[in-house]
Amino acid sequence: MTLYGGLEAGGTKFVCAVAAGPDDIRDEIRFPTTTPDETIGQALDFFTMHHKREPLRAVGIASFGPVDPNPASSTWGYITTTPKPGWHNADLAGPFARALGIPIGFDTDVNGAALGEHRWGAGMGIDNLVYLTVGTGLGGGALVNGKLLHGMMHPEMGHMLLRRDPERDPYAGHCPYHGDCFEGLVCGPAVNDRWQQDARQLPPDHEAWKLEAHYLALGLVNIIAVLSPQRIILGGGIMDQEQLFPMVRANVQTLLNGYIQTPEILEEIDAYIVPPGLGNMAGVLGAVALAQDAAGLSS
Amino acid sequence: MTLYGGLEAGGTKFVCAVAAGPDDIRDEIRFPTTTPDETIGQALDFFTMHHKREPLRAVGIASFGPVDPNPASSTWGYITTTPKPGWHNADLAGPFARALGIPIGFDTDVNGAALGEHRWGAGMGIDNLVYLTVGTGLGGGALVNGKLLHGMMHPEMGHMLLRRDPERDPYAGHCPYHGDCFEGLVCGPAVNDRWQQDARQLPPDHEAWKLEAHYLALGLVNIIAVLSPQRIILGGGIMDQEQLFPMVRANVQTLLNGYIQTPEILEEIDAYIVPPGLGNMAGVLGAVALAQDAAGLSS
Repeated sequence: MTLYGGLEAGGTKFVCAVAAGPDDIRDEIRFPTTTPDETIGQALDFFTMHHKREPLRAVGIASFGPVDPNPASSTWGYITTTPKPGWHNADLAGPFARALGIPIGFDTDVNGAALGEHRWGAGMGIDNLVYLTVGTGLGGGALVNGKLLHGMMHPEMGHMLLRRDPERDPYAGHCPYHGDCFEGLVCGPAVNDRWQQDARQLPPDHEAWKLEAHYLALGLVNIIAVLSPQRIILGGGIMDQEQLFPMVRANVQTLLNGYIQTPEILEEIDAYIVPPGLGNMAGVLGAVALAQDAAGLSS
Repeated sequence: MTLYGGLEAGGTKFVCAVAAGPDDIRDEIRFPTTTPDETIGQALDFFTMHHKREPLRAVGIASFGPVDPNPASSTWGYITTTPKPGWHNADLAGPFARALGIPIGFDTDVNGAALGEHRWGAGMGIDNLVYLTVGTGLGGGALVNGKLLHGMMHPEMGHMLLRRDPERDPYAGHCPYHGDCFEGLVCGPAVNDRWQQDARQLPPDHEAWKLEAHYLALGLVNIIAVLSPQRIILGGGIMDQEQLFPMVRANVQTLLNGYIQTPEILEEIDAYIVPPGLGNMAGVLGAVALAQDAAGLSS
């Protein structure tokens, strides 16, 4: 069995795994994201130990962002303009490349998750898909024609500007750059702030979730308008609120108002907007998928 | 020289050309879009005449939409849910395929224009680009990794839902499906309606253009967030108002507020948001590019 390392580098925690695939995970650790030195150091120790014991073919890193995913750039593998203290312009991939001397795959956490879901989860056989995570932040990754979406940089779907009705929702938003952008309206901290309660404590029929479903649907409608994905996968802590799924689907249909006449929207929307097939392993297995691709590209 | 037919099928007019490329256009005609029978008939006469005189290798059709661009579908080549009277579920590509017996390329007008601009215009060497037309309607096409963007269907960028401040702009929008979606706020008929004047008569410093630039920038910010294109080309009749370009660029920078730290946005935005290199020939030459691709695929 060829072994790969996968690192899901989140703004709240890092998850590291050594695996041959989703059914053969050899080891896994999780620890909080503190300073770059400390957190990257812990991940390095984990992969170095495993690599000595049984060589890893490659390591994949799926990171919170924004990041520089361009292999031709001098800052490839860096986290760039994050507002997270200490992580601005942090070289994340470099230390692993230098310490391990094996191929390193590097992308956003959500592009990684999109790839993992495509390979092993809810996106199998779907070459045009979007993966959205809704948790501490909100991010979106995408595959187009079976390949991860990059361009000028990578998608930053959380920073779309949506319509907010100040009478229905006077909360001005949580994003330090844009206030009430998509992320600023729907991420977990925004829900906590808006309702002055821990989102996890809000009952399933609370008005908070109706508003959340409304904004999620507004974001999805715009993603559908721009990218026309064949499936949309919604993960992250907020989406543990399973009551959101039918509400989001119904809102998307209402907002599209019959304009997009496809079976996906009109008849099979339960299979169009779905939770991750890999559950809360979507992130780290996405990193393993990035490692596989990095090994393939370098061989 | 290999000759191709290109048909730009617009909601207002059809443009037909026979060409070997942008510098070798042998013939071109334009006529108003009336009923499908009459309008398609006129285009068929044009291409049939040319095909008898000197065989065409293929014909490309770049059409107003929504369309069915999926070659595996039984309604491939149809215009589908357009509100345009008479054209709902109209078979556009079929008559050409049957009459001419040569390969037919078929896509949206804006995907066609994106391809044409990539091959010969303002998108040369840019594999991830968006082409937006702002005129009678508003549509967006895209190339990702050098290929036209399709998924569930094709982009419908005009139907993104944007924020509108009812105090600044009480106009409820022009879209029969969504009211104040992107198209509903910024297309030519919306400008005419909102200001109760022909848009072409409004002076360049009129408030109308400030509002137009604001909405265009809101749409572009969302496109950048979802697709991260390396360049955005803005064509169509409204963009003949050249004063819009610097206003749109400045608004995009203001709205992004430093979050996207790329040279394209921060330093070279004049080369990031640009007019079509092919001018008002972008549409029909895009159709010729679709014909070239159709010939390549079938050879």
